[in-house]
Amino acid sequence: MTVEGRAAEEPGGRGPSGDRSRIARRALLGAGGAAAALAAGGAVLTTSGAGARGPAAVIPFHGPYQAGILTRRQPYAHLAALDLGPEADRARAAALLRAWTGAAARMSRGEPPAAACPGADGDTGDTGVALGAGPASLTATFGFGAGLFDRLGLAPARPEALAPLPDFPDDRLDPARSGGDLFVQIGADDPFAAVHALRTLQRLARGTARTRWVMSGFTRPPAGAPSPAASGTHRNPMGQLDGTANPAPGEDPAQRARILVTGSDAPPWLTGGSYVVVRRIRMLLDTWEGLPVHHREEAVGRRVTDGAPLTGGTERTPVDLEAARPDGIPVIAANAHIRLAAPRTNAGATMLRRGWSYYDGLRPDGAPDAGLLFVAWQADPRTGFVPVQRRLARGDALARYTEHEASALFAVAGGVAPGEYVGQRLLEG
Amino acid sequence: MTVEGRAAEEPGGRGPSGDRSRIARRALLGAGGAAAALAAGGAVLTTSGAGARGPAAVIPFHGPYQAGILTRRQPYAHLAALDLGPEADRARAAALLRAWTGAAARMSRGEPPAAACPGADGDTGDTGVALGAGPASLTATFGFGAGLFDRLGLAPARPEALAPLPDFPDDRLDPARSGGDLFVQIGADDPFAAVHALRTLQRLARGTARTRWVMSGFTRPPAGAPSPAASGTHRNPMGQLDGTANPAPGEDPAQRARILVTGSDAPPWLTGGSYVVVRRIRMLLDTWEGLPVHHREEAVGRRVTDGAPLTGGTERTPVDLEAARPDGIPVIAANAHIRLAAPRTNAGATMLRRGWSYYDGLRPDGAPDAGLLFVAWQADPRTGFVPVQRRLARGDALARYTEHEASALFAVAGGVAPGEYVGQRLLEG
Repeated sequence: MTVEGRAAEEPGGRGPSGDRSRIARRALLGAGGAAAALAAGGAVLTTSGAGARGPAAVIPFHGPYQAGILTRRQPYAHLAALDLGPEADRARAAALLRAWTGAAARMSRGEPPAAACPGADGDTGDTGVALGAGPASLTATFGFGAGLFDRLGLAPARPEALAPLPDFPDDRLDPARSGGDLFVQIGADDPFAAVHALRTLQRLARGTARTRWVMSGFTRPPAGAPSPAASGTHRNPMGQLDGTANPAPGEDPAQRARILVTGSDAPPWLTGGSYVVVRRIRMLLDTWEGLPVHHREEAVGRRVTDGAPLTGGTERTPVDLEAARPDGIPVIAANAHIRLAAPRTNAGATMLRRGWSYYDGLRPDGAPDAGLLFVAWQADPRTGFVPVQRRLARGDALARYTEHEASALFAVAGGVAPGEYVGQRLLEG
Repeated sequence: MTVEGRAAEEPGGRGPSGDRSRIARRALLGAGGAAAALAAGGAVLTTSGAGARGPAAVIPFHGPYQAGILTRRQPYAHLAALDLGPEADRARAAALLRAWTGAAARMSRGEPPAAACPGADGDTGDTGVALGAGPASLTATFGFGAGLFDRLGLAPARPEALAPLPDFPDDRLDPARSGGDLFVQIGADDPFAAVHALRTLQRLARGTARTRWVMSGFTRPPAGAPSPAASGTHRNPMGQLDGTANPAPGEDPAQRARILVTGSDAPPWLTGGSYVVVRRIRMLLDTWEGLPVHHREEAVGRRVTDGAPLTGGTERTPVDLEAARPDGIPVIAANAHIRLAAPRTNAGATMLRRGWSYYDGLRPDGAPDAGLLFVAWQADPRTGFVPVQRRLARGDALARYTEHEASALFAVAGGVAPGEYVGQRLLEG
């Protein structure tokens, strides 16, 4: 496998640190694939520095891991799950993944998803929805649900970590919007580029897989932030700055190893991959918005205005979980969200939370259908999402203002080189 | 009424033409209100030239007409209708419109929607959702449905033009998502600024009006377009460039008089106002996307790539409805969308179409819930939307790929000066 220029995707791929990246990358070429690239440290994977945005920005599709994991969050996103149809077998699934890979790679360069058919009057079959949008930082990231392994006779290859997530108290999961055999995450700087990619991938799946659910979200890049990394914080519809305690996997190999599958015992198709937990967390905004600001801040443990912990400092100041008021009451309440979610509280459990907000209008009961598309990446959900959610489900002060409506877990294959397709080592392994 | 700097809102409010605008505006100050401002010609109302975008861009709320009509389309939009509750009377409706006006004016400047309450620890009750978004070109535009006049004992003041739209063949309207007593259109450059404004206005309505429906849309400013005017063209989910034949009301007083209510016989509250038709037009994308490109282009009458009419030229070249192929067949088919929608075909009927695309995931039947939030502005719907839609409903080639699911008509009051509230002249008239 050729290690392609993923560094160009990451913001650090430009400027002085970008030069270092290119040198490091060249040193890696031919050095033995994704594992070597991952082992080489932050140069290739860095997420720091300023990144280009907008129509002309290209995030390379090929590389040692899939784009859309350590990539900065794009403003527009669609998440979709598809189920394999009754006639799908390993050959058809492989054909679909080959078609998806080719279309995603072309669209990420701002090209039509298919080459023009000779004699067809230049008609590529494309609808033109994304014309003028440019590459727009488009990423498409593909994953596999547990059901896919059974359906394709690959049960022995199914990783243990892909077991169903446990039931959590207060979950109110809608099966129709949970799970799925195949997962696609699309992100882009442009809404038409994003919709176009979604529609294109759905169209390519016809006859092989049927869309099970789609969720669409938005975010805003941090205003004026010099470092729009994957780990950057964004507001959510509750007004919180979300993701403050995110790891910075581009900068710390130990943290990175908690996000990406790097172990030498991992199957080749999963090396450089990850596990993604998707949860649709609806926010009960009619209640939340009526609370006094101090109540809202105590439930979270952070100030609304700047995201600083209630124990002081700025957004990036570590929270002091031991701090107490003069009357002895802890500044950060026992059930405050940041206390229960803290890696320290969860024996170091780390995830890269890279989600989007959603606003889907009114529910039949008149309440807003709004919240967070929680998307969390980790090398193993059993030591990432699960312990954290177990603790949160036992008493998070925010839980009474949210409802987990959908849940899914997917294994995300490692990246591919040109000529390869996503999951090839699994389907042909 | 003081005529405030609406010119600063319009792109033309900057640079050389902006200087002319300011001079023209100053000449108008104290000259007698909206009618005089409207009569003064394109200087105040111009929509040409390059406009600022992004977090710092402010579109003034006050002016001779409401913002959000001749304003360039912002990327994020929410449309909402509310119904007055059983206890609403004229005084409560007036209090709501006063509160909405104040909040909208403040949010358009990037301020919290309410001033801090003394003694409340600086708590404005704001959720902070829009913190960091800046003014973000936020506009909130308010309108009145026919039902409001009956509910508030204002039936004699209800304009004849606000009569229900006729039934059109093939309409499949959902009453729950049609009509409404009050209308709000929110547009912004930032998704959190837009959602925050919507939630704030809904919260202020509690006890007086209940949200009937909300629709959310997106668009993309034309890439690199030097003239992001209200009349600019944008793609839609079918891939068409939408709005090519739009009037340019900022540049042509005769066209402007078809968009804004300018007649001396208009009631004062409606002077400088408009009528807005809102239609939710779902697109049957699963069918449309499977058509060969020439079929799609013939249904529209324009090329997908650049929006040029099939009779040649560029996007802005007038269509030649008489052109025929060598075999005598018209180049623009008898049922092509642009033939049936052309002002020429409709005795000059003109609307400013200023809509947004929507993508709301999957319908229960698995089809995409996507299409166009059609938003059309005109001085009189009886000579604007109605004749055009009558003709389209009789045979538009596009109609078989679309479904009109919701419909509403609102009278939009003229703009307000500081200290006034939207609709004051109606409610206190």
